[in-house]
Amino acid sequence: MRDHAPRAAAARLRVIETLLEEFDRAGFERVITPAFEYEEVLALGLGAAARAATVRFVEPSSGQVVALRPDITPQIARLIATRFRDHKGPVRLCYEGTVVRLDRAARGQRELSQAGVELAGLAGPDGDAEVIALGALALAAVGLPRPTIDLGHLGLARSLFTAMKLTPSAEDQVRRLMAKRDRQELEKVLRDLKVFPGIIKNALEMLQLSGPPAILKAAKGRLSKGAQPAIAELAAIIAAVEKRQVDARLHVDLGEVRGFDYYTGVRFQAFVEGAPDAVLRGGRYDDLLARYGRESPAVGFAVDVEAVAGALEGRVSPSARTKQPWQS
Amino acid sequence: MRDHAPRAAAARLRVIETLLEEFDRAGFERVITPAFEYEEVLALGLGAAARAATVRFVEPSSGQVVALRPDITPQIARLIATRFRDHKGPVRLCYEGTVVRLDRAARGQRELSQAGVELAGLAGPDGDAEVIALGALALAAVGLPRPTIDLGHLGLARSLFTAMKLTPSAEDQVRRLMAKRDRQELEKVLRDLKVFPGIIKNALEMLQLSGPPAILKAAKGRLSKGAQPAIAELAAIIAAVEKRQVDARLHVDLGEVRGFDYYTGVRFQAFVEGAPDAVLRGGRYDDLLARYGRESPAVGFAVDVEAVAGALEGRVSPSARTKQPWQS
Repeated sequence: MRDHAPRAAAARLRVIETLLEEFDRAGFERVITPAFEYEEVLALGLGAAARAATVRFVEPSSGQVVALRPDITPQIARLIATRFRDHKGPVRLCYEGTVVRLDRAARGQRELSQAGVELAGLAGPDGDAEVIALGALALAAVGLPRPTIDLGHLGLARSLFTAMKLTPSAEDQVRRLMAKRDRQELEKVLRDLKVFPGIIKNALEMLQLSGPPAILKAAKGRLSKGAQPAIAELAAIIAAVEKRQVDARLHVDLGEVRGFDYYTGVRFQAFVEGAPDAVLRGGRYDDLLARYGRESPAVGFAVDVEAVAGALEGRVSPSARTKQPWQS
Repeated sequence: MRDHAPRAAAARLRVIETLLEEFDRAGFERVITPAFEYEEVLALGLGAAARAATVRFVEPSSGQVVALRPDITPQIARLIATRFRDHKGPVRLCYEGTVVRLDRAARGQRELSQAGVELAGLAGPDGDAEVIALGALALAAVGLPRPTIDLGHLGLARSLFTAMKLTPSAEDQVRRLMAKRDRQELEKVLRDLKVFPGIIKNALEMLQLSGPPAILKAAKGRLSKGAQPAIAELAAIIAAVEKRQVDARLHVDLGEVRGFDYYTGVRFQAFVEGAPDAVLRGGRYDDLLARYGRESPAVGFAVDVEAVAGALEGRVSPSARTKQPWQS
């Protein structure tokens, strides 16, 4: 719950406008979706973590539960599955808006300003590379060139958990330990759960496979057969991104298991100097549209406008921030 | 709770951008305020009607009540009273954002998109005329030239109700009847309430004083002494607006009593062909900033973006909407 005085407001507005211009230039049409919806509709497209972060209220007249959107992507998915049902070929949409999320650590809720794109109807590395390239281009346009883009693939975690055959609560616990990168505790818990040693080895390996794209070669040899399709796809995506001469540093992280109940394929995050967290997050979510009645592959990302503005403010050179003696 | 597909979204975006450009050109700096706030802070600046239309939820961690803003003006008032406390001279701010209002008739809540301005620190007709002129200019810029601007003055209702000396519930009832322009029932109720006949006459006269600015002369003779300051001020505002050669049709309506618990002086609404309701609403609210700790006169307006977009859609000429035989 923050105000932005004129200078800060103008900076944020410039970021949003520049992003939308880039999205428009790339052929993504802008749509507007409501800040709240009936919970039962919105929740269709939300994973467990997003549901837990959703602010709700009861509509006084009807008793229906209304949810403030914690994420815009499910709304765009709903739109593509309904209004764009008869649209032939890929659908490219973009948006700008705020989302609200409960933040239990901060004992309150946060309003986040986002601008993003969704590309539906284009499966595989081509769609992924198009969207990743646009993300880098859009960040460059707002003044954050050459981001570091972290790439992971949820297919790895999916094949791993399928092989582990755990109860939902045990799987949750394992996922939390992997997200925390706690290899020691992870090994202990997996042994207690009597997971097959080869699978434990795989899980521990995944957490160490983080580095330049070249590590994919090592991953091929060190991970099991179930992991190979995801590794191959990630290699194809990286090749497609490199072919587009995207101005970004690529980084591969095979131990990334967050976003599990949402993404189905590649998951990416862009980092820039001056911003402690990712300024852009996205990935492939081929199951989401079906929840709204239309089977379709889809990939997209959202830019965190506040994080971008923060990084840009940090970039103002010291001489521009502090008046120097020779400045009048 | 509505989606806007690409064409409609682009139209709304153009309206917002054009309005903000006009506001910026006129020296109004853009600020951003949060979509929700702790209710106790927001409610300070809300009248009874706005409070009744406010959607609230309880913050799970703290149990505090959070309100979705039904109006952005109280937030700007709070900002001017706090962050701009040391700012000398008039403060000119503008904003764009959505508000949420319970709509009991529709058994739900509506999200409205607004863009508006607030001018604090400039009392009297000059400030009013500046803001009214900017409203007409901004509407012309979006493609709605020469609006009809309805002008009323809450000082009339205030002096009337002071003279009536009614209980709060009787005053509410009288105000509702005046808002409905029900002269017959109004007369009956006022007689039953034993209101002095001269005051009843005044109330009934007010409801009939609606017409071109020239009716102010008639009003001067037909209304009591308590009404004279408001009539004189309205005449001064109209003179100041006319001096600015504002391209608008002015209409005076002295029976307007809505907005009573908010506005203190002039109240205005702009109407255009193709929109059933006002596309712009505003007025002077000299008491609002004091509720946030700073005494200051203020005047402002908000444009209803959806109403503007609707009016513009209605203006597309039939030949542009329906393909003609000579068009390929």
